[in-house]
Amino acid sequence: MDSHVKTHQKEQDHDASPNPVALSKYSNRVELKTLLQRSDGGARLAGKRVVIGGWVKSSRAVKKDSPPPPPAEVAVHPPSSGGNQASTTANISCTEIIQSKMNIFRKLFDVLSGGGKTYPIFDKPELAGQKTAPPPEYILYFTISDGSSVASLQVVVDSAMSTVPTTQLMALGTCIVAEGVLRQPLAASAKHAIELEAEKLLHVGTVDPEKYPLSKKQLPLHMLRDYSQFRPRTTTVGSVTRVHSALTLASHTFLQFNGFQYVQVPVITTTGFGEMFRVTTLSGKTDGKEEKKHVKENDGFSIDTVKAAIKEKTKLIDHLKRSDSNREAVVAAVHDLKKTSDLASQLEMKQRPKAATLIKPEKLDFSQDFFGRNTYLTVSGRFHLESYASALGKVYTFGPRFVADKVDNARHLAEMWNVETEMAFSELDDAMDCADEFFKFLCRYLLENRQEDMKFISKRVDKNITTRLEATASNSLLRFSYTEAISLLQKETSRRFETKPEWGVALTAEHLSYLTDEIYKGPVIIHNYPREVKPFYTRLNGDKKTVAAFDLVVPKVGVVITGSQNEERFEVLDARIRELGITTREQYDWYLDLRRHGTVKHSGISLKMEHMILFATGLPDIKDAIPFPRSWGKANN
Amino acid sequence: MDSHVKTHQKEQDHDASPNPVALSKYSNRVELKTLLQRSDGGARLAGKRVVIGGWVKSSRAVKKDSPPPPPAEVAVHPPSSGGNQASTTANISCTEIIQSKMNIFRKLFDVLSGGGKTYPIFDKPELAGQKTAPPPEYILYFTISDGSSVASLQVVVDSAMSTVPTTQLMALGTCIVAEGVLRQPLAASAKHAIELEAEKLLHVGTVDPEKYPLSKKQLPLHMLRDYSQFRPRTTTVGSVTRVHSALTLASHTFLQFNGFQYVQVPVITTTGFGEMFRVTTLSGKTDGKEEKKHVKENDGFSIDTVKAAIKEKTKLIDHLKRSDSNREAVVAAVHDLKKTSDLASQLEMKQRPKAATLIKPEKLDFSQDFFGRNTYLTVSGRFHLESYASALGKVYTFGPRFVADKVDNARHLAEMWNVETEMAFSELDDAMDCADEFFKFLCRYLLENRQEDMKFISKRVDKNITTRLEATASNSLLRFSYTEAISLLQKETSRRFETKPEWGVALTAEHLSYLTDEIYKGPVIIHNYPREVKPFYTRLNGDKKTVAAFDLVVPKVGVVITGSQNEERFEVLDARIRELGITTREQYDWYLDLRRHGTVKHSGISLKMEHMILFATGLPDIKDAIPFPRSWGKANN
Repeated sequence: MDSHVKTHQKEQDHDASPNPVALSKYSNRVELKTLLQRSDGGARLAGKRVVIGGWVKSSRAVKKDSPPPPPAEVAVHPPSSGGNQASTTANISCTEIIQSKMNIFRKLFDVLSGGGKTYPIFDKPELAGQKTAPPPEYILYFTISDGSSVASLQVVVDSAMSTVPTTQLMALGTCIVAEGVLRQPLAASAKHAIELEAEKLLHVGTVDPEKYPLSKKQLPLHMLRDYSQFRPRTTTVGSVTRVHSALTLASHTFLQFNGFQYVQVPVITTTGFGEMFRVTTLSGKTDGKEEKKHVKENDGFSIDTVKAAIKEKTKLIDHLKRSDSNREAVVAAVHDLKKTSDLASQLEMKQRPKAATLIKPEKLDFSQDFFGRNTYLTVSGRFHLESYASALGKVYTFGPRFVADKVDNARHLAEMWNVETEMAFSELDDAMDCADEFFKFLCRYLLENRQEDMKFISKRVDKNITTRLEATASNSLLRFSYTEAISLLQKETSRRFETKPEWGVALTAEHLSYLTDEIYKGPVIIHNYPREVKPFYTRLNGDKKTVAAFDLVVPKVGVVITGSQNEERFEVLDARIRELGITTREQYDWYLDLRRHGTVKHSGISLKMEHMILFATGLPDIKDAIPFPRSWGKANN
Repeated sequence: MDSHVKTHQKEQDHDASPNPVALSKYSNRVELKTLLQRSDGGARLAGKRVVIGGWVKSSRAVKKDSPPPPPAEVAVHPPSSGGNQASTTANISCTEIIQSKMNIFRKLFDVLSGGGKTYPIFDKPELAGQKTAPPPEYILYFTISDGSSVASLQVVVDSAMSTVPTTQLMALGTCIVAEGVLRQPLAASAKHAIELEAEKLLHVGTVDPEKYPLSKKQLPLHMLRDYSQFRPRTTTVGSVTRVHSALTLASHTFLQFNGFQYVQVPVITTTGFGEMFRVTTLSGKTDGKEEKKHVKENDGFSIDTVKAAIKEKTKLIDHLKRSDSNREAVVAAVHDLKKTSDLASQLEMKQRPKAATLIKPEKLDFSQDFFGRNTYLTVSGRFHLESYASALGKVYTFGPRFVADKVDNARHLAEMWNVETEMAFSELDDAMDCADEFFKFLCRYLLENRQEDMKFISKRVDKNITTRLEATASNSLLRFSYTEAISLLQKETSRRFETKPEWGVALTAEHLSYLTDEIYKGPVIIHNYPREVKPFYTRLNGDKKTVAAFDLVVPKVGVVITGSQNEERFEVLDARIRELGITTREQYDWYLDLRRHGTVKHSGISLKMEHMILFATGLPDIKDAIPFPRSWGKANN
């Protein structure tokens, strides 16, 4: 379609039509993706007047009448892995080098700031050292991102336009709204097709460089986690968010297209199992008072002593950097500092919440609580979905699920979101078919609808990700039973598994990794588990030893979808609930009702959204797969 | 396309193609909507072999070789308002009459059963009185619903086919999976185009009639609320659920189509305001023990005494009914019973949770809690959305929001779900445009995608609903300021409002109803409220007296969408937070950060999904707009 267009001379590549570029809905500006996500990269929009807005990703100043600088590659195309942003930074400070090499700084500054919000990892703009604004004869080259795409726009600003001091204007993270005319870049070597020549700055939202935590240098993801309010401004977290958003719409689309009705299941519930969070209005209101952690002594060091030492050692490093000491001296000082900060971490760990019970349960009278009884945060929506499936046939939901397990690792959060389905007139095989097709649909959806982001993630996070998604989307998943899985694991004699693979044990992460990473090199479905390793509501098979449950397991991540046919026979379910202890039976009475009146075979699945994102992006830690992660001891906003 | 088909003779109307009818995905049966939601009502599917499944809505037995009974209208077409199901019931029992007239039964049986799960409102099948199965020469006519559509299918079963006793098979709520051949109804007067002649019953899930709470007679919605696990089996709740489901997909579709990215905001938060639920693992685990409410004395009557009296009086009514007493005697007895049960209700009310604090807050050490600090259930997702809007531009979320207000009325729940948006580079007018278009899109979506359900709801709940949605979808909403609203209210001199309309007061339900129900007879947008009546984060206008906030208000329901431009100026926001008290400031520090670094004008909206459903269906009570409502003192599953 564009072959004719492509034969145009470059100077004819302006869009001569009088139509303005489409504005973003509910906003008086043009989204950058409207300019940049075109087959011509925006070239034919040259000459158009637009207003754009976004946040500064990088900047440089050039004396007026100098030739324009080579454009930053980051500006238009997804950067290649590592160091791309450095290419736009002439003077990389010692701070930056240390930041990029050392993991300790996050802990360190946490300690220094007493667990506060900000620390001074600030990447000086290139005019660093100049304490006053440069003379007005500078032309400023910005790369600006508005989060609508991976690509950024180069915006050219005459420093005379701004009332804000130029150094401040140029700081990373500054918000700029500019009006101007699109033009082809003046530099012949430019790789970008279009840039904006600003005529007016309509808004400047400055940053406080001493406190802004982001850096031009690519910070490791774990360092960004303490700044969840800012990390979406990084290209990686932006892309992951757009992937997450696409998976959400894809889930609703797939399920509704296949005849499922969405059902709003409750978050506050009286029914559940395992370690649950309690919901209460007893024992105080939100009066904004936050209890301070107590400072405790340990091995003769108090945390305050250690913090003071860290402060001194940090000052030394600062001094070494300023006095142009050689790099080794800095590294040695940093090494010393690391040891001290490790001690601080240990001390802090000892102060971590132990979920200890200061007050015995019997002292709180929950009949006086808001709901007149004990209520919890739901662990699964499938209980309530079963009720609606037993009326509407096929239903689904998407909501938060909570587990108060006192673990903190790369695969677990206290709050995770699941897509759950329940289908009446369905058995185990139907649920496995549903899981298989749903999972592949999501992979295909990303390949088709998030090409730019997947390309960026391939470069930055996991180069095999696109190939893996393509392979997954086009093949039926291999299915085998738990019993077969155990015998496969037993055949592996050259390896010692930490948990010996014997029939009856729960498959560990190590087992699952062996099966998916090494044997099959792809996702598999494992079904018919021993009844002891699956929840009480899964349907007992004819052998009385196994239940009709399955897991869809993927390499590196583990289980992404669980599913089961649930027990529809009153007597069988009732007996299994009694096994749990008589006192629990009452909370399940409404659930048993579904088997008393018009019971039907039914099955369903539960897709763990954050684990799906790990699979789809190659990210190693679940705390980066959700915007505001909550885990043991961690909830900051 | 079908004009050719329509000229066929009736006997040629069979689908001669060998293709089977499409199965429901992930299920070995055909959904009823596949058969019934066709322009021919399914007629051309005659001759096809299918498996269907569903729950019995009504049933009747006819001696073999008798002419088939006139088909129940309910079977295929949405019933007309009231009494439709009665038309299928030859013998309406006294119980049914009482049920349909008296609201007291719910309370009554609640008391009788000690707040337990079930009570014997059971509508006897037409063979009632026959204690043994009828002789096998009966032909049974069922109307079966599987929740895929309003319409039900007539299924014809030879009683000899079933091993389950016929009375049991015929009971309301029985689950039946049947294989057979579709045929045109034999009765010439039949209004349905197709019925199933069963050849095999593949599954029968019986009900326990003594305990099954649903009745063939249409029960009032408030009586169904205690049986939220069963009420989706009623046609009304089924339709409302399908409307809810459509609104959910429509919300995601509208927002993603308009460039919004979905963002998962957390449910567990440290930030909020107002009456909040606390999330904790302190003071005990879920061990399934449920604290019993204490029995208290009141005015000399204990609840036990009153319960005993109710039991006796109920027995009397039962006796009167069985002995064929006249209706007045029954009604008198019921009236007497009502007085007693009212007393029981009062006693029970006094035992309702008062959210009393048995333990002073300072006794619980929340630094020892799961997250090492106080955490709450979120009241609004917009705080966290602002963080992502300040990076990605336009974002939205859909999730549960919690308010621990001790009120229990038709417009409030403790857990409600909101669709929330936040848009950078946007101001108040943009947010109002967004609310206006989003709201109208939802109305239009229902008219186009839920015709059958809207038609049913028009007949059963609110006959003006379709007209109202159409009028709303095709007009721009009127917008006026709070100041104008007050002066409109002040002009109304013939009425005394409970709250006198003076500038500065919060608009009450009465005010809003006057403006929307009486003056404008439709939805309106009211904007620029006094700062005192809106949250602290809304943007202060130039007059320093009002803020850039608005409400979209609809007749009968009240506010469906709230929206605002939020304060982007650090100093102004900081000052307003300080007004709230110094101690709260710490929890908002991360939120203030967004104004410290790269701040930008932004606005957003919050659509209250359950209130939208009230508007779209005409339902009067919010407890019927969500599957499992949670409110003060009420959480049952």
